[in-house]
Amino acid sequence: MTVIGVIGGGQLARMMIGPAIELGIELRVLAETEFSSARDRATAIGDYRDVDAVLDFAKGVDVITFDHEHIPPTVLAALDATGVPLHPRPAALAVAQDKIHMRRVLDDLGLPVPIWSMAETAAEVDDFIATQGGRAIAKTPRGGYDGKGVAAITSSNDIAEWLNSGPVLLEECVDFSRELAQLVARRPSGDTVTWPVIATIQADGVCTEAVLPAPKASQRLIDDAAHLGRTIAEGLGVTGVLAVELFETTDDRLLINELAMRPHNSGHVTMDGSVTSQFEQHLRAVADIPLGSTDSRNIWAAMVNVFGAMDTDRYRLIEASSAVKLHNYGKDARPGRKVGHVSATGDELDDVVHRARAAAAIFSQSK
Amino acid sequence: MTVIGVIGGGQLARMMIGPAIELGIELRVLAETEFSSARDRATAIGDYRDVDAVLDFAKGVDVITFDHEHIPPTVLAALDATGVPLHPRPAALAVAQDKIHMRRVLDDLGLPVPIWSMAETAAEVDDFIATQGGRAIAKTPRGGYDGKGVAAITSSNDIAEWLNSGPVLLEECVDFSRELAQLVARRPSGDTVTWPVIATIQADGVCTEAVLPAPKASQRLIDDAAHLGRTIAEGLGVTGVLAVELFETTDDRLLINELAMRPHNSGHVTMDGSVTSQFEQHLRAVADIPLGSTDSRNIWAAMVNVFGAMDTDRYRLIEASSAVKLHNYGKDARPGRKVGHVSATGDELDDVVHRARAAAAIFSQSK
Repeated sequence: MTVIGVIGGGQLARMMIGPAIELGIELRVLAETEFSSARDRATAIGDYRDVDAVLDFAKGVDVITFDHEHIPPTVLAALDATGVPLHPRPAALAVAQDKIHMRRVLDDLGLPVPIWSMAETAAEVDDFIATQGGRAIAKTPRGGYDGKGVAAITSSNDIAEWLNSGPVLLEECVDFSRELAQLVARRPSGDTVTWPVIATIQADGVCTEAVLPAPKASQRLIDDAAHLGRTIAEGLGVTGVLAVELFETTDDRLLINELAMRPHNSGHVTMDGSVTSQFEQHLRAVADIPLGSTDSRNIWAAMVNVFGAMDTDRYRLIEASSAVKLHNYGKDARPGRKVGHVSATGDELDDVVHRARAAAAIFSQSK
Repeated sequence: MTVIGVIGGGQLARMMIGPAIELGIELRVLAETEFSSARDRATAIGDYRDVDAVLDFAKGVDVITFDHEHIPPTVLAALDATGVPLHPRPAALAVAQDKIHMRRVLDDLGLPVPIWSMAETAAEVDDFIATQGGRAIAKTPRGGYDGKGVAAITSSNDIAEWLNSGPVLLEECVDFSRELAQLVARRPSGDTVTWPVIATIQADGVCTEAVLPAPKASQRLIDDAAHLGRTIAEGLGVTGVLAVELFETTDDRLLINELAMRPHNSGHVTMDGSVTSQFEQHLRAVADIPLGSTDSRNIWAAMVNVFGAMDTDRYRLIEASSAVKLHNYGKDARPGRKVGHVSATGDELDDVVHRARAAAAIFSQSK
């Protein structure tokens, strides 16, 4: 039996557990704490920045993958030197770890990205803002997630502190009509599959809703998004699941916002919406077994995140007839914390979205 | 968080693991061996006939349920005396544990069963055979499963050994056109739901295929089967999933063959076929949270068991486009052993059955 080791014990590792069982794959997780979301399969507790802990965990696993992108390059290099296969490969992961590197690589592939620049001084920041009509988006190159490390700015003063720590990525404020996510999976042997493009809703930089497929998407949009995803996966040699966050601009272009080389919040909608979920597919890709069908199970699927608390007591308030699927991340309650999600599927978009939102709201009301 | 303890570490316990994670329920399993199918959640290793092992396991769980029906009544009584809720209740479980008791109880409920009799002597057996045209079905009252403890007989000589051990259940040889299974779930609070009736195919007493819903089922058949299931669940106070194995006779009657008070092989088809699988539903029922929708996700779903070996190497032979779902029980290879199942779903019955059979055959060819 293949043994897959996952570095990081968050909800992404947690949601791999069920598919691993059904596939007959042994999953082992290196978790940060005893009370991690993926504690059921945490075979080791340790810091992913601790090279000894990571190397010790790698003994006896057939392949290593990741719950998050924050593993330091030095640790990745040491791990790679042991010869255990890493998916995604460190070189691909590096692209997702550094937003400036990512912009350069996407430029090299000739792919559409927002107008961007790297700035190291206040003067460079203010110059860029001036070229963009007085406002811009600033991003720290490393370590950001869920809206952290991203700021809308009108002056270098807004990010004075960031500039003390190193270069900053600057981008135009994209005039977008909505955000999309293109999920892709690629095996080491090269097979690549795409799901239909997903519409996402963010609040304060945090994904809160996803709809599969993106409503009112033209065939051109669907094809273009899939082509972008495939080009990136192949261009960077991604192995595992890749999520490409996209802007659909008001003038009907697609621009690449971010990349994640792992299952992604937007892709949670595939758990109930698709023949093969992003978590099962990630395991298949990482284990290099044939990828599953990415067809949708029903016409529409909607996913709504739950924040704060998802106590099982509240399940009693959800009518069975609402036919939603609950996904609990097993986390302690904390205001604003992403603790689970709810999905609905069906033939009518409005009905599907309404059912998922209504169920999620029952939990949100508890905090 | 609710903690559910499962006595027995077979594939039924294994297939509860994924749903437990998504529901945010902590599952703990008392497994027979270190290498049980449900080893991922085996928090204790012990013999289910050892009252001390079982009582020790019960400490710290909120509710106890079962992977199989073989727990001795003395152990059940001791467990019940501790006050930890048992689902199903020992009185209900007793009905599934003893086929003669089951026949009596079903008679009392006025439900349709094959002509039956209890025999303790060779003369009683031969008398019954004479009333049934020279042949009968004999069953040991306790401990049978997957065709074991069942024999087609024409003389008391065929079961001379069984008669030495105690009474035997005798039944008419039912002239049936096919076998069906009615799945039901009932909460302690009384809510009861039924899935559409399932068609099953047995070979040598072992379930090999299931189709949801049963093809060419009239509305009357569907309603009658659901009514039978509901009547039994309510009449016996079943809590959790109940499977009612049925004969559809050549003269269009339904006769109750067997009862199982747990998820059942026929119900594996609900994992991919239904909004709520039998495993998720069993956990919901046992935890007394609202039951999920039993609607089908697609028009047809088919399940085919895999026997012998389900090595992951064979996954490479299954085309992604076949869009089947694999369920591996994590068991060592052994000729004839039930080691997994494969499901397919879709709009066309023939296509769905063909895809599931073709994928299962890839594994069967390996042994």
